[in-house]
Amino acid sequence: MSFTDHIANGYRRRFDELRASNNPLADGIACVDGEYLPVYEARIPLLDQGFLKSDLTYDVPAIWDGRFFRLDDHLDRLERGCELLRLKSPMPREEIKNRLVEMAALSGIRDGYVMIVVTRGLRYLRQYAPEDCTNFCYLMLTPYVWVMDLEMQKAGGQAIIARTVRRTPPGAIDPTVKNLQWGDFTRGLLEARDRGAVYPILTDGDTNITEGSGFNVMLVKDRKIYTPRKGVLEGVTRKTVMELAEQLGFPCTVDDVPVQMVYDCDELFMVTTAGGVMPITYLDGKPIGDGKVGPITQTLWKAYWDAHYDPALSFAIDYR
Amino acid sequence: MSFTDHIANGYRRRFDELRASNNPLADGIACVDGEYLPVYEARIPLLDQGFLKSDLTYDVPAIWDGRFFRLDDHLDRLERGCELLRLKSPMPREEIKNRLVEMAALSGIRDGYVMIVVTRGLRYLRQYAPEDCTNFCYLMLTPYVWVMDLEMQKAGGQAIIARTVRRTPPGAIDPTVKNLQWGDFTRGLLEARDRGAVYPILTDGDTNITEGSGFNVMLVKDRKIYTPRKGVLEGVTRKTVMELAEQLGFPCTVDDVPVQMVYDCDELFMVTTAGGVMPITYLDGKPIGDGKVGPITQTLWKAYWDAHYDPALSFAIDYR
Repeated sequence: MSFTDHIANGYRRRFDELRASNNPLADGIACVDGEYLPVYEARIPLLDQGFLKSDLTYDVPAIWDGRFFRLDDHLDRLERGCELLRLKSPMPREEIKNRLVEMAALSGIRDGYVMIVVTRGLRYLRQYAPEDCTNFCYLMLTPYVWVMDLEMQKAGGQAIIARTVRRTPPGAIDPTVKNLQWGDFTRGLLEARDRGAVYPILTDGDTNITEGSGFNVMLVKDRKIYTPRKGVLEGVTRKTVMELAEQLGFPCTVDDVPVQMVYDCDELFMVTTAGGVMPITYLDGKPIGDGKVGPITQTLWKAYWDAHYDPALSFAIDYR
Repeated sequence: MSFTDHIANGYRRRFDELRASNNPLADGIACVDGEYLPVYEARIPLLDQGFLKSDLTYDVPAIWDGRFFRLDDHLDRLERGCELLRLKSPMPREEIKNRLVEMAALSGIRDGYVMIVVTRGLRYLRQYAPEDCTNFCYLMLTPYVWVMDLEMQKAGGQAIIARTVRRTPPGAIDPTVKNLQWGDFTRGLLEARDRGAVYPILTDGDTNITEGSGFNVMLVKDRKIYTPRKGVLEGVTRKTVMELAEQLGFPCTVDDVPVQMVYDCDELFMVTTAGGVMPITYLDGKPIGDGKVGPITQTLWKAYWDAHYDPALSFAIDYR
């Protein structure tokens, strides 16, 4: 028996059903230029500045057990990012929602990883004013992605505090505008691999931690929860976990988190839409606490997945 | 009469000839999956990690008056970038060279902007080791791109020292590995536009300048030349201009360049393959010196373009 069982069993059953399906879209569906097609066949213009300058923002909501989770929170963040980058999605919010639901129904994907990407389009900002650019919007839905797979979540994963790379500072590239400029994370992933781990946590270059390659970091010390305030994405999963933690009586502090505090913590976990609450039990090759998934992490893990059935946070997709 | 005339006249004649051509590839040619096609029709997989994580490196050599300029220097830099990112171009160096020459001949482009992009491909580094990834290589040749158009070069352009954004530090994303993570530059371009200028110069966050959106920065003070050492691309154009400057008796210093030194300089110019030596005559709305293109800038401008006919630095393309 593991704390993951009640969620993992249902997920595995649905996963096997999806794999057995002969729906050609079951491996993933994309929407490009308003057309639906298998995600592995989807292509975008070579000249899109979203590729040629990574000039874009995006967001990743998830579908869990046939329900969209906090879709409006993700769309709010996407819209804020567009505003800051002076992008305007050619696809209005309601259409994005309707199409995503339609893509879920068409593909039969009941546990899904969604990407909504808004790019600058074909025009480059040196030559054109933002208002003269026609932006693009790409949608994609694939089977759920696990930053840490469920099996590993039982025992927890191995992380490092990266030594050979630091997080890009907000004064250069604003991490609250979700972006695909992963050069620092890619270096971190390579360092993690070289050091026998999987998950890099990057510092701010001033001995505080920030975030890792696609996840926020949270830690538990003396039954209180801490997570970095600055230089990080304001994650929807992080927000959910903080709300649940407060309800469960664990106070949360969002502030500078010095590296030393991570080495000294009782429990450590990563949070992201693609994987939920993911325990880290070894850091830089040494166990966190006793090297087992801690009790507060387990409590939050269960609360997080249960929240996916809360009608205040999610809605059921009509698969017809 | 302007110092640009001897070069500009030939370029304009060739440009008009290209525009009058009915070659369907005259607007640009791409090579994707080994196939040639018009660049505006070229598409890449949505799932390429070169798009989804900007996990790539690239380079930009130029063709001038039917001759490839310093192609080997660009390919050396590309190979070094691939090595640092643990990428391996699926297209060997000799094939890249041969194809680029072929693309020039097919399109009839005699003044061209080339992009060679090597991306991670479809596999993401968290799940796969670098050696298990099949990388992609895209080639593209378009008519020559001017970061500052020739007409503006006569009088010089308007730049700013960006106040709302700083350059990504090398400890986060290494600028010597040429990359398309332009979030900081994009913010700089927007600030420049808002302040009535075109060209942003970004600081290192510690009151030294680095580089701008696609160009190195050089300045002249007391007949000596200065350019930033750190946090910048090691530009091929910068290298060329430094070599020519030394030959012409202007000593070059590559070191920290404090912002104040830029405000106090006698002449200021940007350098890049896409535009050459481009004078900046106004900075933050105020003239540099007397607000005219300075004599050393003009001397280097001419020497730079003349160097394109030096057989030690360039070779003629056989257009048949």
